[in-house]
Amino acid sequence: MKRNRAEPGAAPPVDPPRSGALSRRQLLARSGLASAALLATAGAVPAGADASGTSPGDLIPISFSGPHQAGIATPEQDRMVFAAYDVTAGDVSGLAALLAAWTDAAARMTAGQALTGPGGPFAPPADTGEALDLPPSRLTITVGFGPTLFDDRFGLRPSRPEALVDLPSFAVDDLGPARTGGDLCVQACADDAQVAFHAVRNLTRLALGSATVRYVQLGFGRTASPGAGQQTPRNLLGFRDGTDNLVAGDEGAMQRFVWVDRDSDQPWMVGGTYLVARRIRVHLEAWDRSTLGDQQETIGRVKASGAPLGGSRESDPVDLQALGPDGLPLIPDGAHIRQAAPSTNDGEAILRRGYSFADGVDPASGELDAGLFFICFQKDPRQQFIPIQQRLSDQDALSEYVVHTGSGIFACPPGTQDAQGLGHGLV
Amino acid sequence: MKRNRAEPGAAPPVDPPRSGALSRRQLLARSGLASAALLATAGAVPAGADASGTSPGDLIPISFSGPHQAGIATPEQDRMVFAAYDVTAGDVSGLAALLAAWTDAAARMTAGQALTGPGGPFAPPADTGEALDLPPSRLTITVGFGPTLFDDRFGLRPSRPEALVDLPSFAVDDLGPARTGGDLCVQACADDAQVAFHAVRNLTRLALGSATVRYVQLGFGRTASPGAGQQTPRNLLGFRDGTDNLVAGDEGAMQRFVWVDRDSDQPWMVGGTYLVARRIRVHLEAWDRSTLGDQQETIGRVKASGAPLGGSRESDPVDLQALGPDGLPLIPDGAHIRQAAPSTNDGEAILRRGYSFADGVDPASGELDAGLFFICFQKDPRQQFIPIQQRLSDQDALSEYVVHTGSGIFACPPGTQDAQGLGHGLV
Repeated sequence: MKRNRAEPGAAPPVDPPRSGALSRRQLLARSGLASAALLATAGAVPAGADASGTSPGDLIPISFSGPHQAGIATPEQDRMVFAAYDVTAGDVSGLAALLAAWTDAAARMTAGQALTGPGGPFAPPADTGEALDLPPSRLTITVGFGPTLFDDRFGLRPSRPEALVDLPSFAVDDLGPARTGGDLCVQACADDAQVAFHAVRNLTRLALGSATVRYVQLGFGRTASPGAGQQTPRNLLGFRDGTDNLVAGDEGAMQRFVWVDRDSDQPWMVGGTYLVARRIRVHLEAWDRSTLGDQQETIGRVKASGAPLGGSRESDPVDLQALGPDGLPLIPDGAHIRQAAPSTNDGEAILRRGYSFADGVDPASGELDAGLFFICFQKDPRQQFIPIQQRLSDQDALSEYVVHTGSGIFACPPGTQDAQGLGHGLV
Repeated sequence: MKRNRAEPGAAPPVDPPRSGALSRRQLLARSGLASAALLATAGAVPAGADASGTSPGDLIPISFSGPHQAGIATPEQDRMVFAAYDVTAGDVSGLAALLAAWTDAAARMTAGQALTGPGGPFAPPADTGEALDLPPSRLTITVGFGPTLFDDRFGLRPSRPEALVDLPSFAVDDLGPARTGGDLCVQACADDAQVAFHAVRNLTRLALGSATVRYVQLGFGRTASPGAGQQTPRNLLGFRDGTDNLVAGDEGAMQRFVWVDRDSDQPWMVGGTYLVARRIRVHLEAWDRSTLGDQQETIGRVKASGAPLGGSRESDPVDLQALGPDGLPLIPDGAHIRQAAPSTNDGEAILRRGYSFADGVDPASGELDAGLFFICFQKDPRQQFIPIQQRLSDQDALSEYVVHTGSGIFACPPGTQDAQGLGHGLV
């Protein structure tokens, strides 16, 4: 990606990020932020000092640029920080400036580099600093545009994609306004919580005067181990979650179900996708008091192995027609995997990429406020998330244990390439 | 540690945890919880399947038993879940039963094993399951007793240690009752957030009917890399935090500053320590707008390198007497490292073991609700945390940027050994 060599006002100029480029600390020194004391010792830092105690994968940046945004088909990282913003800029040029600044900052941070700006002791540091010694940690930053961005403030009404609908209400909804909506969203994922938080904090800081943060949600998961012996991570229900998820590496499936193609009514969205986020609180106390048999019939799988009921291995195909000795379906009518299955939903599927959350104790009930921050990506929510979720809300046995407390839908534009920033073709 | 071979009602009995013992999954199968389908496939699970994608350190359990509780002198893990509880048991025998159940569960979970209990499809699973496939991940569980435990409910008033005082108010306090106090606390630390959360969730579940959870706080940090090239982790101020902390591996310092000795008025506390927790919210937006020079003078160190002002390396000794060319102290009067230094505090020191937190957006201000969940351990808070914090509240330049929103003090009893559970000698 071609970008300016430095932000306005930055001195001296620094190199653009590239694989194997300067570390955050080296950049800090070169940007003039560092003190003479640091400069005196910078040469004493052993190359690779950032590497000690980290896994090799953490050292290789995931490129921010490409035909699609990263953080969608990217293998899931361990941690997530998700933020939604309200744009306060007065016109579209202010919005465009924000997206340009975010493009530049995201490219730097995902490369493991510090933000740069005017240096010296008399200016606030351009980078907040908590990730200075940390490797890229597979950081990805994914940006989306909410339906409200396409109202009259920025003249974008004609550019609103038809697929970016307002979500209907669902029977499981108890949405809090402070956890719902947003003109913009940022999904920052990394294997280190501090790196992901640093990204959202610094993007929020760059938005000063043009956008305010509406909510921030932290999440944790467990990366599926790469290679042979891969295990599907478990969610807070204690079940493996994602066994029959779309495989992000299956380009055919991604083209069919995830990436917006040239049939879109909005050319600027070609190569993009639609993100739906749902903060799904699980009533863990009620779930934990239900029997193993009830839990397994609610999900439709064996808790320990992940096998579909009636099967013996997690990888066994789900046979929704199979009957038990009693003549009843082995996978009950209300089982989550039956109601969510593509074959029950006209062949539709979504790419799920959610994280567990635990936000302390709900003061109203004294119970844990925890569950799943569900994120999915799809080509058209009208054909995918919405009808699937309507079915689940009404018929999924799991609905007894969950309530959706936050919601958002966002159009994620394609990736940034060839000097084009986030939202190119739109702003 | 000698313990019963199984919890009451468990069938069949299982082996006690030991290094190299059964994995959570294997235990699940043997405890009768697993389905026939699982048992049929258990033999197909490759030995070491839990290991893929995890670092070797995650596979070695940290023993729950020993002369001191783990999680104090233990090198800091990446993640923390801290919980405080109100005891609802009607008498001391109910409290003792809870501590016995926690002792057994903590020994199992820190060994990477699942909780066991009555099995089969018609009982709730004894273990909630989300850590079933995960290694021990250096999990430690540390339990403490708050001052309120020693009121009249359990007849423990004569056993209250003199050092377990009620904390005074400090100038930086804006404590929320829902984040303050508690009869009991649990500090669960691990390199995997899901393993730490699993521990607190299952201890909370075991407390059903004898204690309710008062608050839960999640935290994240960054483990200092082991061995040569160790770097001190940074906090959300962007500064390295812990450079001059007590070294937990320095047994002399631990005996002098941390472990309660035979001079204690309460023999049951010998080998224990006192934990003080403070939820320190940092006004990140204000901090981020201050200049690099201001930040460095507030802390007393160079941001990039961690060197004390006037020094060149992080490891340089802090010279509080050094003057600059202008005749003023290089480390200003109000600098945090001056006010917190042992030499400023009659030689007293504490073992700090805190984690960063980020709890979303404060609805009142629209700013990030984030900062440091400060935890320290010491032999006597009357000589250590309290006078140090009084000095910091009044004179530390950093106080301008922080507010303490939660607080707790807890007596952490010694470790469990030789069939003695948590709180032996007390209940």
